[in-house]
Amino acid sequence: MARFLNEDFLLSNKTAKDLYQQTAAGLPIIDYHCHISPRDIAEDKTYDNISEVWLYGDHYKWRAMRSAGVDERYITGDAPDYEKFEKYAQIMPMLFGNPLYHWSHLELWRYFGVTSPLGPETARDIWEAAQRKIKPLSAREIIARSNVEVICTTDDPADDLKWHIEIQKDPSFKTRVVPACRPDRALNIEKPDFSLYIGRLGASAGVEIKSARDLKSALALRFEAFNSLGCRAADHGLDFVPWAPADDEKTETIFQKALAGVALTPDETEAFKTEILFFCASQYARLGWVMELHYGVVRNTNTNMFKRLGPDTGFDAIGNGGKAQNLLSLFDRLNGVNALPKTLIFPINPVDNAMIGAVIGCFQDSSAKGKLQQGSAWWFNDTKIGMEQQLELYASLSALGNFVGFLTDSRSFLSYTRHEYFRRILCNFIGKAVENGEYPNDSKALEKLVTDISYTNAKEYFGF
Amino acid sequence: MARFLNEDFLLSNKTAKDLYQQTAAGLPIIDYHCHISPRDIAEDKTYDNISEVWLYGDHYKWRAMRSAGVDERYITGDAPDYEKFEKYAQIMPMLFGNPLYHWSHLELWRYFGVTSPLGPETARDIWEAAQRKIKPLSAREIIARSNVEVICTTDDPADDLKWHIEIQKDPSFKTRVVPACRPDRALNIEKPDFSLYIGRLGASAGVEIKSARDLKSALALRFEAFNSLGCRAADHGLDFVPWAPADDEKTETIFQKALAGVALTPDETEAFKTEILFFCASQYARLGWVMELHYGVVRNTNTNMFKRLGPDTGFDAIGNGGKAQNLLSLFDRLNGVNALPKTLIFPINPVDNAMIGAVIGCFQDSSAKGKLQQGSAWWFNDTKIGMEQQLELYASLSALGNFVGFLTDSRSFLSYTRHEYFRRILCNFIGKAVENGEYPNDSKALEKLVTDISYTNAKEYFGF
Amino acid sequence: MARFLNEDFLLSNKTAKDLYQQTAAGLPIIDYHCHISPRDIAEDKTYDNISEVWLYGDHYKWRAMRSAGVDERYITGDAPDYEKFEKYAQIMPMLFGNPLYHWSHLELWRYFGVTSPLGPETARDIWEAAQRKIKPLSAREIIARSNVEVICTTDDPADDLKWHIEIQKDPSFKTRVVPACRPDRALNIEKPDFSLYIGRLGASAGVEIKSARDLKSALALRFEAFNSLGCRAADHGLDFVPWAPADDEKTETIFQKALAGVALTPDETEAFKTEILFFCASQYARLGWVMELHYGVVRNTNTNMFKRLGPDTGFDAIGNGGKAQNLLSLFDRLNGVNALPKTLIFPINPVDNAMIGAVIGCFQDSSAKGKLQQGSAWWFNDTKIGMEQQLELYASLSALGNFVGFLTDSRSFLSYTRHEYFRRILCNFIGKAVENGEYPNDSKALEKLVTDISYTNAKEYFGF
Repeated sequence: MARFLNEDFLLSNKTAKDLYQQTAAGLPIIDYHCHISPRDIAEDKTYDNISEVWLYGDHYKWRAMRSAGVDERYITGDAPDYEKFEKYAQIMPMLFGNPLYHWSHLELWRYFGVTSPLGPETARDIWEAAQRKIKPLSAREIIARSNVEVICTTDDPADDLKWHIEIQKDPSFKTRVVPACRPDRALNIEKPDFSLYIGRLGASAGVEIKSARDLKSALALRFEAFNSLGCRAADHGLDFVPWAPADDEKTETIFQKALAGVALTPDETEAFKTEILFFCASQYARLGWVMELHYGVVRNTNTNMFKRLGPDTGFDAIGNGGKAQNLLSLFDRLNGVNALPKTLIFPINPVDNAMIGAVIGCFQDSSAKGKLQQGSAWWFNDTKIGMEQQLELYASLSALGNFVGFLTDSRSFLSYTRHEYFRRILCNFIGKAVENGEYPNDSKALEKLVTDISYTNAKEYFGF
Repeated sequence: MARFLNEDFLLSNKTAKDLYQQTAAGLPIIDYHCHISPRDIAEDKTYDNISEVWLYGDHYKWRAMRSAGVDERYITGDAPDYEKFEKYAQIMPMLFGNPLYHWSHLELWRYFGVTSPLGPETARDIWEAAQRKIKPLSAREIIARSNVEVICTTDDPADDLKWHIEIQKDPSFKTRVVPACRPDRALNIEKPDFSLYIGRLGASAGVEIKSARDLKSALALRFEAFNSLGCRAADHGLDFVPWAPADDEKTETIFQKALAGVALTPDETEAFKTEILFFCASQYARLGWVMELHYGVVRNTNTNMFKRLGPDTGFDAIGNGGKAQNLLSLFDRLNGVNALPKTLIFPINPVDNAMIGAVIGCFQDSSAKGKLQQGSAWWFNDTKIGMEQQLELYASLSALGNFVGFLTDSRSFLSYTRHEYFRRILCNFIGKAVENGEYPNDSKALEKLVTDISYTNAKEYFGF
Repeated sequence: MARFLNEDFLLSNKTAKDLYQQTAAGLPIIDYHCHISPRDIAEDKTYDNISEVWLYGDHYKWRAMRSAGVDERYITGDAPDYEKFEKYAQIMPMLFGNPLYHWSHLELWRYFGVTSPLGPETARDIWEAAQRKIKPLSAREIIARSNVEVICTTDDPADDLKWHIEIQKDPSFKTRVVPACRPDRALNIEKPDFSLYIGRLGASAGVEIKSARDLKSALALRFEAFNSLGCRAADHGLDFVPWAPADDEKTETIFQKALAGVALTPDETEAFKTEILFFCASQYARLGWVMELHYGVVRNTNTNMFKRLGPDTGFDAIGNGGKAQNLLSLFDRLNGVNALPKTLIFPINPVDNAMIGAVIGCFQDSSAKGKLQQGSAWWFNDTKIGMEQQLELYASLSALGNFVGFLTDSRSFLSYTRHEYFRRILCNFIGKAVENGEYPNDSKALEKLVTDISYTNAKEYFGF
């Protein structure tokens, strides 16, 4: 019987163990998409106790606590920090098979030296053990200990990026921290604060935005500003991939209606998004950026709790799968004018996995190795089985050797252990196939595969 | 090599074997949803031969026989009972990997002491062995031997529940048999017999139903009557989860049209179902009942055979997946007025599994542990792999420790072995993860997990 | 550790090894659906080098090369044959987990005696080894060595079948080569060349097609002609399964509009396809043919490359899943008039697997064993995991013992090794269950299962 949480964690065979220990474990991390705050890095944030760094703001853990019937007071309420920690400890044994069970223990192990399972009986001891380690665990210290080479944060094009500028001015901090651009608000024309946002974006770009054309100019200027700070990627969080092409005149009319406060039809909204997404994508192609498309989440589904806690508090869901034809049409149009950027697609509903795998295979070419890729299993799918299924499908439908691998997508500095989690699963996936005679036992080829997927491919693909 | 059908059946490792033999095997059964007849229990039905108890009425077996090319005469026709049994025996070897292969052998083992594989050569001997055991195997005897603590049958709100009253009057029968409410016919306004049914329901409730408002009153009265007989759950069999909210006036108009025999549009039908489902759900919340939503089956697809044999004869299919937004809207509306009951959702198409798992996570709160749950793999998915996938997904997206586990959904008294089947799969699922080092080898925690999912959670969740 | 590519390739346990070596390996092949050219067989085509037989025309390999970033010049361009081979060799190590990795090595092994892994270092040696074997490897020689008993090619009803006639005239060639009918162009009324095609079809049938009624007559005549040459199957490649029934008058009107060059609405197109598909299916039932329905592919998605290379060059994708109700309606209508043929369904998106498995179960009867079947995992799903999932689902929802097994669907003579690939996976699938105690270790029953699925069932089902 394998022991829980030792050096061979999740590595079920010798090839896997060797690949992980000798190759994957030591590689630097390129975390090409996350939601940590550049301000926290600039100010080198510190924490008073483990609840602050571990439970504040982690809506994955909040959802698990609610599923286990914990009162909201101990989740986002005013209960003391230790009691929140204790409540989480109490539900841990129920989280059998939940990725949080693994993530939480990896984090306790790697950052607090704790290897005993967290549960109601061990809560007090583990809290105290963590307390002894918490002081030096600042944001930068965590990053340094985690061997992180590059961090791409997620930034609005209207953002002034001042924290990035500050971080980059400090030569003592070795990790490369760059912005990644997320222009969702420039597309979300149906939202009530759209025209307010357009004003903010214009101010940031130094452009008075009076037309869709101005909007594009402002975005292009901001993309240049991001680029000059080392940005190599942009991300779109889409309800669904829009496809309702419109000419400039129609796009302009829709934009003017929105600015005038006139309600738009769903078709108009989709048309506008189609055109702005197309424009953004072609800009990314010009800049050599990677476009990331995250789609299919239904957000803020619980009205009561949204009113109480706002967004990103654990009330988002997986929606239905997306339309193959929309993706195909978008890519074909971009490809037709030689403006298809490198693209990573992240469907939230795994029912789309096979479709995506086949769709991207239609637009590969020699302008990049693995130019279009299905992104690593994401959010709700970021589990052992979810990652294995993504790897299996990626391998079946693309060239796995080109895969750019894992990203945390996280709001927490402790999440770098998820790269370890991914790499263990990757090495186990590869090792198992080798031990079953499905791939030659060629250590050079295997080491290259593991190194490329854990590190090198991301470095080359994004251009760090 | 493991032997087929011994005490270690489906248990591939020591942890699993220990958990099953020492913990799961001895626990009572709470069969919280099935279709057995309360009359058969009240009258303590007996059988003349194995075909009567095993092949009459089991449309799972009928489908398998048709798939294997057996003539209908030996399925639902007038062939002698032994010949029907023999035909089923003949096709058994072809049913490699079909859950019927396992279920049938578990049933032969547990109720008839037969452990040799059923096939053309053994048909005669097994028939005779069964014949020697059949006499004492009455409905109550099967239930008693199967260690069943609670049975929830499925009853129409218009039903007078007289068989339930009779069973409950008999103190000698230890199993608690209670009705569960299935108000499908009160929602199915598009059906030709709707107004007839409304009359029947009104008579049962002592209400003259002249309006949608009256219908609600009648339902509420019947729910109270069910409740007083120990009912703790209601079930809805839905083509799809409806979402077309309507105000009282519109609902009333639709209802009057239906009573007047005017054809309804699909939108009207959906609106009516939305409102009645909403009303029912809020009543369940008030009563502390569990709402079960089974959706996505396409029924009576083969017109020829429907005319010949009627419903529930093996001609239903898995339809397409459902709309995430409909479920989310229903739950959000109920939650908004503090009327969301405990809910189990059973999608028939497994493509919805991930979506459901994420949707329910948005409405959990401390009013119950695991307030919303994805139900156990159901009907066509009630296979080893189907159950494993449901467990995996449940664990990944919820807190597995709260899962209320298995239900037979069966029309046959012999189906209690499916609880054994589920528990073996559950113990194997848990044991495998432990042996792989994915969860600590903590026997106390593991026993609690298995006991809770096999028995305690259902007892607490339903309130028996 | 198992060695890559030896006699036990993919066979992880003793039962599997015995079943494969002693039973499956020696059985003849019935390749009931493929795209090889009857002319190449008639003329007994030969090859100058391995690139000709291996890389020319194989769009699976092309896609992989594009995914790996290879320039089109080395794929479909004018690079010398050796350089193309070398480029493919260079990307091989990246194709970890891709079925091409297995298929390519099986082909090198079985036809060229090469067992060392193909990669950049071995490219030259393997090229030369292949060069020494290439001369005798004619089309007929490959077929003979592969123990192929029956080949069904894919032929348009307008085709004159002259190559088939020629092959059948030659008594020295032992493999039975028969046409299979693919009337897609007779259904594709929306295509610009439809009326041109109708002219061709009419000429071939000796009917002047002036009406939809004439079209049906012409098709019926061509089906008879195919039948007289031994045809036993027809295949439909459908974007989606159409369901928009129309009466004869409406069908006629639509047909006349198309002949007159008037653009059709999507509804009209679907109505026409519904009616012609219904007609074809009822003809197949009359002739005892098998109907194959392949649906859900999105074709020619990359406009740039379509203009450059035409169809079937690696730019097709998996579309979304299909509508359960359309399939059910089609089958019910055919069944209602006693005209439902034996049917194999191949969805391209695996999300439809469970739905299909349940749908077909509604129309089984004693007119054939496994009258309706879900076809073997197809095209993008033709992987180890894809095949295993199809087997698992087939077994769960139908009677696996009736499954007609594998078809290559290939354009290459070297693809017969994919039957070996399938049989290995099948034996491993069966052996694993037996070793786990999920099915009795009854060698006679197991041998029958493997023989039936690998060979006998196809022979009986198609009637060869």
